[in-house]
Order: sequence, then C-alpha cells, then structure tokens
Amino acid sequence: MNKLKNDLLLRALKGETVERPPVWMMRQAGRYLPEYMVLRRKYDFFTRVQTPELACEITLQPIDIVGSDAAILFCDILVIPQALGLEVQMVANKGPFLPVTTTTQADIDRLTVEGAEDQLEYVYDAINLTKKELNGRVPLIGFAGAPFTLLCYMVEGQGSKAFNTAKQFCFAQPELAHQLLDKITTATIAYLRRQVEAGADCIQVFDSWSGLLSESDFKIFAEPYLLKIANALSPSVPVILFPKGSWYALENLSNSSASALGVDWCVNPKLARSLTQNRITLQGNFDPNHLLKPIADIKREVHQMIDAFGKDRYIVNLGHGILPNIPVSHAKAFVDAVKSYPNR
Amino acid sequence: MNKLKNDLLLRALKGETVERPPVWMMRQAGRYLPEYMVLRRKYDFFTRVQTPELACEITLQPIDIVGSDAAILFCDILVIPQALGLEVQMVANKGPFLPVTTTTQADIDRLTVEGAEDQLEYVYDAINLTKKELNGRVPLIGFAGAPFTLLCYMVEGQGSKAFNTAKQFCFAQPELAHQLLDKITTATIAYLRRQVEAGADCIQVFDSWSGLLSESDFKIFAEPYLLKIANALSPSVPVILFPKGSWYALENLSNSSASALGVDWCVNPKLARSLTQNRITLQGNFDPNHLLKPIADIKREVHQMIDAFGKDRYIVNLGHGILPNIPVSHAKAFVDAVKSYPNR
Repeated sequence: MNKLKNDLLLRALKGETVERPPVWMMRQAGRYLPEYMVLRRKYDFFTRVQTPELACEITLQPIDIVGSDAAILFCDILVIPQALGLEVQMVANKGPFLPVTTTTQADIDRLTVEGAEDQLEYVYDAINLTKKELNGRVPLIGFAGAPFTLLCYMVEGQGSKAFNTAKQFCFAQPELAHQLLDKITTATIAYLRRQVEAGADCIQVFDSWSGLLSESDFKIFAEPYLLKIANALSPSVPVILFPKGSWYALENLSNSSASALGVDWCVNPKLARSLTQNRITLQGNFDPNHLLKPIADIKREVHQMIDAFGKDRYIVNLGHGILPNIPVSHAKAFVDAVKSYPNR
Repeated sequence: MNKLKNDLLLRALKGETVERPPVWMMRQAGRYLPEYMVLRRKYDFFTRVQTPELACEITLQPIDIVGSDAAILFCDILVIPQALGLEVQMVANKGPFLPVTTTTQADIDRLTVEGAEDQLEYVYDAINLTKKELNGRVPLIGFAGAPFTLLCYMVEGQGSKAFNTAKQFCFAQPELAHQLLDKITTATIAYLRRQVEAGADCIQVFDSWSGLLSESDFKIFAEPYLLKIANALSPSVPVILFPKGSWYALENLSNSSASALGVDWCVNPKLARSLTQNRITLQGNFDPNHLLKPIADIKREVHQMIDAFGKDRYIVNLGHGILPNIPVSHAKAFVDAVKSYPNR
C-alpha cells in the first residue's frame, strides 16, 4: 500500500494538530461536475455503481477537478438492501424505488444476511482500483447507510419527506423493527469490514433520516445500531457517524468509539463543540445552498466556519450533499478557501 | 360575544395556573375524520376553504368528535399568495402548485399588498359563523403562514423536501428576498387583524419550513418577520409562533411579545423549558406517528409528556399535523389522556 502524501484527513480524525483542516464535500463526485454528467448520460445509475472502472473514474473526478483532501467511493447506500435480496430501482426524477417493501415477519425472514457482503464484490474491486489510481494522493473514504435510514427505504419503498410509514412501523411493531435493524446491521458490518480490507482508509456511516426521530426514539431505533457498527470497526479504522439532523445525539455519540461526527447547518459550531467538549472530531456543516453566493462570500464564510469550529479536530465539509446547480468554480472556491486558511 | 365556557387555552397562554393543560391537534379538522372525508369527496379544496358554511362545519367537527379544547379555523396558509394576486392550485396527491413563481423584481412588484386582506372576506365570514356556532364552547384559533414559509412556496412554486430553490433565492438575492418577505408580512398583519376583528381568540403563525435554515439564516430571513407579526398583534390577542424545526430559536423568541411557542418532537421538553426558562407558554410536541401505538401507550406517553413540560404554561398538541391514517379512537385517546390528567 502506498504511503499517503496527503494524510490531513486521517490526522484530523486522530485529533492531531494540523496546519489547516482537511476538506471534502458530500456528493463531491456528482451531478455538478460536467465530467460526471458525460458518464451519467452514457451509463445508467447501477451500471456506474457496479462497474469498478466507472466507479473509480467518478470517485477520482473531484480530486482532480476541485482538489478535495479525500476521495469518497462512488456507490449507493441501497446496495445493502440489494445484497439482502431486494430489488432497488433508480427512477429518473423520482429517486430510489423498491417494488417489494419489508413490513412483515415473512418479509424480514426472507432477507439473507449470510454472505450478503459477497454480493458486493464490485465495491471492493472499485476500492482496490481507486486506491491504485489514487496512488497515495489522498485517503479513500468507504461508506454505508445507517440501519435506521436503510429501514426507512426498505419499509417505505421510496424516498419521502417524513417517512411516516417507516416510523409507524417502528412505533407500532418495535419487535419487527429491531429484527430488521439487526439484520441490516450484521450485513453492514461485514460489508464495511470488506471495504476496509480492500483499502478504505476511513468509513462514513450516513444516517440521513435519523433527524426525523425524537431524541428518545433515536436512542431506541438509531443509536444502538450506529454504536454497534462503530464498535465493530474501531479502532482499526476511523469511523465518521453522520446522523443528519440529530444534533441532540452529539453529546452521547461523542463518548462512543467513533472518530468523528458529522453535523448539518442546523446546529451551530459553538453548540456542537460545547455538546462534544472536544472529545471527538467534528465534520460539516456549510449549507450547500450558500455555495450560490458570490465567491468572496464563500471564502469569508468558510474562514468564519473554521474559526468557529477551530482548525483542529475538524473536517471541513458541507452539511448535506452538494447540489447539481452549484457552479464548479464555486465548489472549487469552497475547497480553496480551506487551503488558504488561515490567510484571509 | 359569548363568554367562553372553556377558556383553558387562553389561561394557559396568559401563564395562569390551570387544573390541567388545554389540548388541541394541528390538522385536527382533517383527513383522519370520516365526517371530513364526506365533505372532501363532495367539494374541492378551495371550495371548502372559501365557503364559510363548509369551513365552519369542518372547523367544528373535531370539537364535537374528539373534544379538543380549541377550534382552529379550517383554511390554508396559501390564501395570502392568492390575495397578493397569485394563482394557487391544489393538485391531488401532489399538494400545492403555483403556476407563476415569484423570483424577480418584476414578479415582486406585481404583488398587490394594498387591500390584499379584502380579498379574504370569506375567511372573516367563516370566523364569524364559527364563533356563533361554537357559542362559547371553546376558543377559536385563527392562523397564517409565516413569511419565510410563504416565500418558500412562492419561489419554489410547489412543496419540496429541502426548498433549495427558495433558499438559494434568499442567499443569492437577499435584497429581493427581503422585499418579498416585507410584502408578505404587511399583507399577513392586515389579514390577521381582520381575523381578530371577526372573532379569532388567538392567532397561530406557522413557519413550517424555518427549520431548513441555520440559526444565523433564521435570524436574517425568518425571525424579524415573525417578530413583526407578533408585535403587531400582541398584546390585544395572544400569538403562538410555530417555527417548526427551529429549536435554536426558542431562547430568543421566548423574549418576544408572542404568548407561546410551538415545538416539535425533535426538541425534548426539558431542553425546551431550559431554553425558554418558563418565560413563555410552550405547545407540542407529540410525534403524530406515535398515535398508531396502542391506546394504553398513548395515554402513558401523554401523561409523561405533561409531566416533562409541566402542566402550567403548556398547551398539549402534536409536533406536526395529525396524519390521515390515525384512527379517530386514537386521536380521541390523545385528547382524553390530557383530560384525565393527573389521574393515571
């Protein structure tokens, strides 16, 4: 394995003192990049995900084009439901669609956890290839969806504003919900271990919908499974947990085996630090819609954000994925602002 | 005007000591009620809103059927964009749709604030009629959408998960955004004053999408307009502000002229009280999805919630509108649990 030339991300995850924080952007390999759009027009979504050469090419694009300090594998959180035996379609202008939902004991019994991770060899191949192509330039982040978020899609069968059906499943049939969450968790741990074996330097777990839960429901349906995953992987590989919207969980999770917590823009840096008391690295939290502001404003706001979080134990990121209509020059300005820190 | 037989809501809003807190439910006049569904099949949405006899009948249904301590007028927040001159359609299974969005100086100039409130006589007629029919049984709540939330719909043209277009409009063209927010605010104040003249005992302002903003953006694009409305109406009528998701705003808003703040389930009662220091009445925050739990659980959780908020300076409510699939018996159990408090 090549030694990393840029190990800022890993040093920030260890809590080491750094000259400036590392920066990457959620969905940095995505629709705002014209180079990605070329591939998107040529290959459908799961072809891009399942072809290691394409996944690798897409993963590298933002490293070459905007200069992020970390690559994150181009993949999807719904490969786990697929590996468990479910069909997942990606419908144009609608998003994911699962024709068969998981809402009964029989549905759950049908999910095959044993060897599910072996269905996803293409992911490990893509990681392998990407590590080779990166040649130590920056670390590679592997990832998975958190169990509660995957449950949301598996029960609801599609995206939703409030995932009421999924939440009602949890509240009305908690025993089934925990069975399902257990199965997802087991498969996810095996999957992430294989990602690490293949070369992932760090793992991020996306709980994109945990913020729909109250603090007490988060403790029942999200937190235990996040902790199980973090405990299974740490300390051999650093784990970033991103329970989007669940600012109330920061204090508890800062005492976990995770190396970092992602935060969105709905919690201000000062409060996030006060809840976590510098026990853990924080990652976030620029509202991607601010990237439509003039470049001078972006630069100023990024510097203010770093000042507010502090440059150590901090990874600069957005609070959610970058949006398709952000000009590449503005995405690059975001990254460059971090690289110029602390010079105004 | 008839003296109120049940003035629990108004006493809780004044901060008086009560034997038990009042209870009502957002969207209590809605799709979970079979009696509402009968009218929904017969009359389209805006016919129901614009016909005082229908709006009155719908408003009274939950008072008769589930026994809420307050009625809230059946109406819609998008009547203000209509009064400003915009077309608003209600599309089946899709929600609101505005064929012409408001995104340029010319669009904003075209909005007619002067006399906009006079376009909404049917609302005042419905309030008048409802007050007569209520005959003092319970108070009547009037309402409006908050300026930021109305901007979201006017810019985006429809519902959205993240209202990115609307937020980008605010961030990239703040001067236009403030012009639009000013116009909405002026029209809303005139509209709410007429609601009070017609007999509304209390006003709720719904900022349904303010939680999409960071704390600093909330202070720029939401808070000043909420305060302007509260200041224009208080103290002659109590005002409840409900900036959904904006738990970070509780401390500041508790020092405003509003009488109460609505909270959703993503802030726990203890924190909400600690942020507001019993300076203001709080309203909320039961996750409506919990209403699918067994009735015994609902009763227990409602009592726990009242214990956590404290019975005074508190209005029991959901943290969001009741959902169409909640059995009426469960909605009634929610209300009854409050009425039986403190008896377990």
